[in-house]
This record gives sequence, C-alpha cells and structure tokens, in this order.
Amino acid sequence: MPNLSTIVAEIAAEMADAPDRGAVADYIAPLGAVDPRKFGIAVIDADGACHSAGDAEEAFSVQSVAKVFGLTLALGAGGDSVWKRVGREPSGTAFNSIVQLETERGIPRNPFLNAGAIVISDILLGNRQPAEVIAELLRFVRALAGEDGIFIDNQVAAAEQATGYRNKALANYMRAFGNLHHDVDRVLGVYFHQCALAMSCRQLALAGRYLMRSGRNPTTGHSVVSPQRARRINALMLTCGHYDGSGEFAFRVGLPAKSGVGGGILAVAPGRASIAVWSPGLNDRGNSQLGTLALERLVQRTGWSVFEG
Amino acid sequence: MPNLSTIVAEIAAEMADAPDRGAVADYIAPLGAVDPRKFGIAVIDADGACHSAGDAEEAFSVQSVAKVFGLTLALGAGGDSVWKRVGREPSGTAFNSIVQLETERGIPRNPFLNAGAIVISDILLGNRQPAEVIAELLRFVRALAGEDGIFIDNQVAAAEQATGYRNKALANYMRAFGNLHHDVDRVLGVYFHQCALAMSCRQLALAGRYLMRSGRNPTTGHSVVSPQRARRINALMLTCGHYDGSGEFAFRVGLPAKSGVGGGILAVAPGRASIAVWSPGLNDRGNSQLGTLALERLVQRTGWSVFEG
Amino acid sequence: MPNLSTIVAEIAAEMADAPDRGAVADYIAPLGAVDPRKFGIAVIDADGACHSAGDAEEAFSVQSVAKVFGLTLALGAGGDSVWKRVGREPSGTAFNSIVQLETERGIPRNPFLNAGAIVISDILLGNRQPAEVIAELLRFVRALAGEDGIFIDNQVAAAEQATGYRNKALANYMRAFGNLHHDVDRVLGVYFHQCALAMSCRQLALAGRYLMRSGRNPTTGHSVVSPQRARRINALMLTCGHYDGSGEFAFRVGLPAKSGVGGGILAVAPGRASIAVWSPGLNDRGNSQLGTLALERLVQRTGWSVFEG
Amino acid sequence: MPNLSTIVAEIAAEMADAPDRGAVADYIAPLGAVDPRKFGIAVIDADGACHSAGDAEEAFSVQSVAKVFGLTLALGAGGDSVWKRVGREPSGTAFNSIVQLETERGIPRNPFLNAGAIVISDILLGNRQPAEVIAELLRFVRALAGEDGIFIDNQVAAAEQATGYRNKALANYMRAFGNLHHDVDRVLGVYFHQCALAMSCRQLALAGRYLMRSGRNPTTGHSVVSPQRARRINALMLTCGHYDGSGEFAFRVGLPAKSGVGGGILAVAPGRASIAVWSPGLNDRGNSQLGTLALERLVQRTGWSVFEG
Repeated sequence: MPNLSTIVAEIAAEMADAPDRGAVADYIAPLGAVDPRKFGIAVIDADGACHSAGDAEEAFSVQSVAKVFGLTLALGAGGDSVWKRVGREPSGTAFNSIVQLETERGIPRNPFLNAGAIVISDILLGNRQPAEVIAELLRFVRALAGEDGIFIDNQVAAAEQATGYRNKALANYMRAFGNLHHDVDRVLGVYFHQCALAMSCRQLALAGRYLMRSGRNPTTGHSVVSPQRARRINALMLTCGHYDGSGEFAFRVGLPAKSGVGGGILAVAPGRASIAVWSPGLNDRGNSQLGTLALERLVQRTGWSVFEG
Repeated sequence: MPNLSTIVAEIAAEMADAPDRGAVADYIAPLGAVDPRKFGIAVIDADGACHSAGDAEEAFSVQSVAKVFGLTLALGAGGDSVWKRVGREPSGTAFNSIVQLETERGIPRNPFLNAGAIVISDILLGNRQPAEVIAELLRFVRALAGEDGIFIDNQVAAAEQATGYRNKALANYMRAFGNLHHDVDRVLGVYFHQCALAMSCRQLALAGRYLMRSGRNPTTGHSVVSPQRARRINALMLTCGHYDGSGEFAFRVGLPAKSGVGGGILAVAPGRASIAVWSPGLNDRGNSQLGTLALERLVQRTGWSVFEG
Repeated sequence: MPNLSTIVAEIAAEMADAPDRGAVADYIAPLGAVDPRKFGIAVIDADGACHSAGDAEEAFSVQSVAKVFGLTLALGAGGDSVWKRVGREPSGTAFNSIVQLETERGIPRNPFLNAGAIVISDILLGNRQPAEVIAELLRFVRALAGEDGIFIDNQVAAAEQATGYRNKALANYMRAFGNLHHDVDRVLGVYFHQCALAMSCRQLALAGRYLMRSGRNPTTGHSVVSPQRARRINALMLTCGHYDGSGEFAFRVGLPAKSGVGGGILAVAPGRASIAVWSPGLNDRGNSQLGTLALERLVQRTGWSVFEG
Repeated sequence: MPNLSTIVAEIAAEMADAPDRGAVADYIAPLGAVDPRKFGIAVIDADGACHSAGDAEEAFSVQSVAKVFGLTLALGAGGDSVWKRVGREPSGTAFNSIVQLETERGIPRNPFLNAGAIVISDILLGNRQPAEVIAELLRFVRALAGEDGIFIDNQVAAAEQATGYRNKALANYMRAFGNLHHDVDRVLGVYFHQCALAMSCRQLALAGRYLMRSGRNPTTGHSVVSPQRARRINALMLTCGHYDGSGEFAFRVGLPAKSGVGGGILAVAPGRASIAVWSPGLNDRGNSQLGTLALERLVQRTGWSVFEG
C-alpha cells in the first residue's frame, strides 16, 4: 500500500476534475449557496496521524452526520431502553418517509432516519431546555474532536425551523402514537440545531475516532463508549447510514458510514481509520456523489473494506 | 482467545440446553418434520481446519442459503448486467412481500429476497432445461465444498412446487413487468430445486470458504470469484442476508451471513473463518433462533465482528 | 308505505333496545362522556314536515358531518379550483391515514378525509382570521337550518386542539408539499372549531335540506348551490362519506350520507327527505353503529334507496 | 325533456366529432386492433323501448363489464357467503393492484377488481369444468338479453391467457392465502373467457334491464334477483364500478355503472333505463373516455342522476 498521504492527495486531485458532481441540496438557502466545486477529505489513521487534502479545513453543515453523535449521547443516557422506541432495521424508504410510521405505529425503523433522530432528540431533551441539550451536544462533539472551534450555525438552524414542515409532520405523527414525550417544538428545536452543527472534515474525522478502536479515543485513551456499543453503532451506520442507498454504499465502499445532506460523510475503518469526506453535490439517494466516489477509491487503494478477507 | 474447538464445543453445549428454540417452519411437511432439538456448528478457520460440534454432519435443507451460490453463478455468467434486473438494497419488508414489486415495477430490491432469487434463477436458466441448471449448481457447490455427498432433496423440491403459490405469484408478477424472460414454471423449477439443496454444517462452511479470503478457496488456492466480487457478495449478505432482520443481525452478530428457513445460516468472518450453524427453530423474522444466538456468542468470544476495531 | 312519523317512531323504539351499540369515541374527554344509550332521528320530508323521535332535540358534536357544510362554503368561494387541491375518489384507507399523501404528493383523495377537510379549511381561511371563518360557517349553518340555537362547543374545540397531533401531522405534511397555503395552526384553528359544531338531529336535518332538492331549500325557496353542485356533493357523500366504510354503507343503506365520530349521520334521499340520526357508539370503521342500522331500516320501509328501481 | 331518441342521436353525433378519444388498450392484439373512431349507445327505457345510435349493433369485447353478470350468478349460487371472500369497498388503487391483497391477506376489496372477479370465478367454478361454467354464463347473459347472438370471442380469451401474467400473479397470491379453492389455471380459464364475452351496446343494455327495476326484467316480467340484491349490485357498481375512477364517475355522471377495458360501459338509471355505451379509447383511469362523456351528457339532458332531487 502506498503512503496514505499520497493516496489522500491523489483522490482529492481526481475529485477536483470529476465532471458529475451531483446536485447541491437547496431546500434551505444556506445549503443551496454552497459552492459545488468544494471537496475535502481527512483521514485519521490508527496512530492518530491526520492525512488531509482539498477543503479539509473548511467548516460545512454536517446535517445528518450529527445523528451519530446524538445517538451516542442518547445511548449513554438511556441505554438499551432507547431500542424500545426506535428500531434497528433499514427502512427500504426515503429518509423522510412517513409511510412506515403508520404501519409500524410510530416506531421509526432506525435512529438515522429523520423520524428516528427526532425520537433520539426527545430522549436527549428530557425535562431540559433545548439550549441545554444543544450545549451538551456541542461540548460532547468538541471533546471528541479535541477542538473548541466547532459551532452550531444558527442561520442554518433557523432556516430548517422555518421550512421543516415534513419534520414537523413526522414529530406530530409520532406524538400521536405516544412515541414523543415532550413538546413537539422543543424536540424539534434540539433536532434542527443538531443538524446545524458545522465542522470541517478534519474535525469530523477527529470526532469519529472513538468508533474506530473499541469505543476508545486512540489519541487520548479516553473510553467514550463500550467496545460492544462501538461495534453496534458501526453496524447501524453500515446498514442504515445512507438511507435508502445504504445497500449500494456497502456494496461499493464497504465501511460503516453516515452521510448528511450537506454533502459530508463520516466513515469508520475499524481498527484502521476515522475518515471524513465532503462534497456538497448529492446523488439521487441524497448522499454525496463525490464523497462516495472518494471513499470507494480510498478503500480500493487501502484494502480497508470490512468485507475484505 | 481460547482454543477455537473449545469455543465451538462450549457453544454447542449451551445451545443444547437453550429453552427458547423458536418455531420450526411447517409450510411444507418435510421441513415441519425436523426435530427442533437439532443444533450443529462448523467453523473453517483461515488455515482450513474445521472445528465442529453438535449435529454438524447431518444434512438439512439449506433453503435460502443456496441463494448465495445461485447469485455467485449468475454473476459469473451475467456479470454486472445482473444488477439491471435486481437491486442491492434492503427491502424493509418480509422475504416474500410483493408490495415493493408493484411500486418498483418488477425489479426486486435485492437477490436474497424470494423475488430476487427467482430473477437470478431466470438468468441462470437461459435457454437451458431446469435439470441442466440444477446439475450445474450441484456441481458448483460440490466443487466449492470439495464434497460429492451434497444432494438435492427432491421430496422438498416437490413439496415447495406443490404449495409455492406465493412464489408463483411473485414470478408471474415479475413476468408481467418483463423482468422474467423465460417460462414461469421452468424458472420456478430451478428456484425450488435450488432451495432443496441439502447440506451439513460442515459442507456448508466448506462451500463458503471462497468468501472469506478474496474470492479464493484457501484450501485449494482456486479463485472462485474476484476479490471485488467476494467483498460485494459479503456486503449484500450483511445488508440483506436476513430479510427484514438484517439490521438486527448486523447489530448483534456483525458478520456477513445468509439464513434459510430450514434453520441454517452461512456466515463469513473475512480473513478469518467460514462458519455454518443450524438449528431448525426460527425467530419472528424467519431466521434461526439458536443459530443467531450461537453466532452472537462465537463473535463475542473470538472478536470476529467486522465492526470490531 | 306506512305513515312516516310511525316509521320513525318504530325505528327509535327498536334502537332503544338494541344490544350492540358500538363503542363511544373517547380520544377526547367531551366525546367520551356522552351516554351510549342516546339515540335520535329526524326526517324532513319533501313538504318540509319534520318527523322525529328519541333524542332528536339534543345537541351533539357533529364532528365530520360539518365537512359537508365547509365543502359547500369552499365551493362557493373557490369554485372548481378547489378540485386542483383535493381529489374526488374514495381512499381505501382510514380517515386519518397519511400514507396516501406521500404517494400522491400532498393531494388528499377527497374532501371528507381529515386531510381533505384541512385543505378545505385552508381555502376557507384565506387571509382572514380563524374566528371570522368560524363565524361565517356558523352563520351559514344557522341560515341553512333556520335556527339560531346552533353553536360551537369550545370545550370540544379546545380538546381537539390539545390532542390533535395526527391532524397536525397531516397539516404539516401537506404544507411540505405546498398544498396548505396558510399557517398550520390557524388552518387547524378553523378545522377544529368546524368539527366542534354542536347540533341536534332536527337542526342537522333542517340544515341538509338544500341537498335534497336541486340545491334549493324547499322551505324557503332559497337557492344555496346550483343543481349540479348539489348532485355532486351528494355523489361525494355516497362514495366517500363514511371513510373506508363507504362501500358498505352504500350497500346496506343506499343514500348519500356523511358520518361523524360523534355518532351523527346526515343522509339525503334526493327529492324525498333530509335525514339526521345520532347514536354515539361507533362500529369498527368509525361510523355510528345504530345510526347506520336505523337508516338501513328507514330505507327498507320507505324504498328511498337511490338504487331502487 | 326532449324525446329520448333525439337525445341519443344528438349525443352520438357529438361523439363522432370529439377530438380527444383516449387511448385504445393494446395489451392484447385483438383489443389493440379496434378502430378508435367507434362509438355506440343504446338506451332501454322503462317501457322496454330501445333507443340507439352509432355503432350500437356492433359486438365488442365487454371485458370487465361481464363481472356484473358473473357476480350476479355467484350471488345466486353462494348467497351472502360470497362476502366472506370478497369485500364491498372501493380500493383506492388500480384495477390490477396486488398491494391491497398483501395487507388484507388475500381478500380483494370488491368483486369488480380483477382479484375480486377471480374469486367470483372460483366460486362459480366449484367442482365443474371451466367450459361448463362458461356455457352457463353464456346461457344466462343470452337469457337476460333475450338474444342468442351473444358469444365468447375465443381469440380474445386465448390472447388474455397467453399474456395474463398479472392476473396469474393475483390468482396464485390469493391461493397462497387460501382464498382460491380450485386449480389456478382452471379458475383463470373461467375468468379469461368471461372477459372475452362479446356483445353489442343493444345486447348489453338489454342484458342490464334486471338492474333497473327491482331485479325484474321489465320486458319479460321474470325476476332475476331479489329487489334487495338488485339495489346492492347497483350500489357496488356506483362505488366500485370504475376502479380508481369510481368517485370521479359518480361525481360527473351519478349512475351505477361498470366499465370494461374494451371501452364499454353498462349504466343503470334505477326505474328509468338500462344504458350501454361503447367507445374503445380509454382515459387515464382505464375507463372509456367518450363513453363517460356520453353518459354525462345523457344524464344532464334527462335528469337521471341518482343524486338529482
């Protein structure tokens, strides 16, 4: 295997020229304004070294990637009782589909669907104020990454809140089934701000380190979650992390990973690396077009697929 | 890690006493007649050594596990054109659901659903007679396992054929959309006989060796499929191999695996082992109750989860 | 045919003894508190005479029956443009199902589903305040009935508003598709107050007179809607007026009719009668158990089915 | 009201010039070959007089219109037990949808869906040969019409049989749920031949007379079904007779009616007329484009809507 920094630089160079970059999400103005030519990649290896290229230092809206951090916090708070209120199966439907909730009586299929992440927000909220929860989430992500510069983009949060009728529908619908315990607006306050977390590829890869080595931050040695919980979060990322494109992603890339509509993807090569890529154009399943391609090439050149023998 | 033979023997002993063994499939008489107390396990390690316990030498109806072999053959014959007629996504629905076919116009979501495997049978059939295709499949599986004792249970095939109205519905439905090219009865002839493949745990684990090491049979050194194809089949097994319980299986076990309604499961620990377990009682998703539990314990004690860092 | 008053009295007497009265809706306290032994019937004949029996003078919550009056007003305001935003087909699903809205992109199948009536409320609202719209609706219904005693039960409206998460989900979901033009809470303010209209059987039958004779109130001679519009509203009541029990109601009764979860039904025998029945216990499709039975018997004894030759 | 013959002639003249004639069904060659310029209308009034125009004497494939006669025979043989195996509700889905069968476990929503009519064919078949059943059906329809020239078009039946994969899927699927009791091919033999019934508008209107006057043929005085059964068949025709366009048809036309993919419609004006129209071009719901328009105009000019007061 060639030098990792070389591989990362080559991939960034290839992506710069890629003609088919997908379509930037434009359902809210702050996302729609992002330059489609952006591409960043950061790989933290098992020794804690960071290999990055492209726009790896530029903060972007991580959107649904943040669901991984929200889930991790909720499991810490609620333990396995979380699984009474959210499933662990791929949905076979779009990220914002409401159909499944009707047939399965308000229990979202997994925590990475919008509905599932809203239930997680409800669990995190408890009897607190949304601002307290968001502050805790921000502290948690900053500690994971060891970076204080991570922030919430309030403009993004406000835009989500102003137009998020579909998420409001999901939340009210689950409330009707008793699977949301707190005020819908407060729960969505948590959810929309979580989505508005802004991080660079480097920060995101740093924050994901605990998933690559038995739940332990390999740099600090601090245990974030148990080894079993790290494995399980990885399993959920692999089967459900790319919405209704998760099978395809596993087929092409073969790593646990979570994508966001901002064009970011956090991927984990267990024992080997924590990886973040970002390119704002999305494919037809709502996942980063070039981010996926970059990860596919990285895995080809490193042999990091979990399915490699 | 303790000695593998010891682990396998311990697990078999634990399973012998397990009180909740699930319910044996009884939709056809030959399956319904199987003793629910049966349990077998066989593990072929990276050195080719076989560690087995319980009823590991007893042949059982592998049923849907055979879909892995059918898919491997069809990819060999049709290459990537196979993916024009069958998807690569988990379905979010039961193994025999027809709903998805209506909304997605006759294209099954993945090759491990009944509908998907029927399309694969159609690809395998081509202009041949069903008997030729089945003979080829049998030769292939025997060669993979290096065992001539593997056979098709014609009594099982006949029973499936006599009662398989739901599969006939799926086949006719896909024919209506043009996604079955040959006579429905001949295609189902292939499909029902493939399901009726009878193998022991040891034979099944032997046959699965090509998936554990880059598509190459580690004993013979013979390359069955390319490394990329081996990874991809493993990916499909992980995301789709346990029907609508695939997410749960990945969460608990963390290995690519394919289950069958006869109670068998073939699992792959890439680079480490090919594993077969068998216990006829099924859980509520139609996967072997004790087979899953045995694999969960095997992975806990060996650290073989693909999600382990 | 025996005397109509005699028939009406006989039916009321039969209903008083009926053992199977269905289950009273209890999703809000004010409905759950209603005495299941209540039964009322009022029939206004072609000459304007009122034949009533039982609790025909007692006001009850008309709930979805009010959708007929809301639709009539909206058609008056919006004409056929209403049909760009709501369909005219039975749904094949429950009154509060959200599934159809996803597959048909926010267009409810008909104006008598909750989602359809919410769109109608949005049309009625326009740029007005909810209170103005409700005042207009109340004036309209009072004028139709020629009775000033009709009122909105604010306790019912408040209870609906406090618990109506499913309706909030429907409204937000349609807003996401652009099929709600105004603030969700204001639209639902109109909707919940419309549902809270309280009327007696006699008042309801009086209010329905315009549908029995070419859109003209036979007592006052005042034309409420055109003959074509009266026919069309009747058609919608027959095909869609009893949710997913509309086919069954047409089969048994054979009259255009609209039911409400409060146990009321308004039925129209074109050219012959405007009829209201009320009994709070509901059958498994959410329609009044005894109200339906009473109408079935009325039609048997009068020959008023529209399907009678 | 002007003279009925004049109205009928005017409508035929208007239809001759209509520019938008819909699309002729072409899923089988014999239907695809029909001239889209054809239009026929026949009205049998309460006195038994026949008013016809256009191609009213030309036999066409009545297709699903024959489901009315099949249902009538099955109710005669099975009585209300028929309703244990088929529902009485509009489906909210296409005529050949299989989705509803999965969620409702093999019970079709109504006897006018393909699935429902296949169950009716199974009831009619009993232990007889398909040819006997078809002979009985033909005798029945000839007797209803008082015409011996009515026949089964075997070329049409053969073409349906050769390509009817979707109907085979429906039949096998219901068999899987135990709601088909006899051999699928024999049941479909009945079904496909019933669909291949060939009749002219005049013959079809004659055959429909029993539905216009309390189940009694007004010409012969012979009672075909009870008054209640006639009303109920009319009710089913109104709520379910035009598949997922039944609400729209009721809205525009307001008569119980059954359409067929051959472009024919049988409509009943209770107490007033039995009507048949035919024009092979279909609208987007699969119902005759001009047939519907012609009936709409007939009802406007005669006031025959069942919703007219």
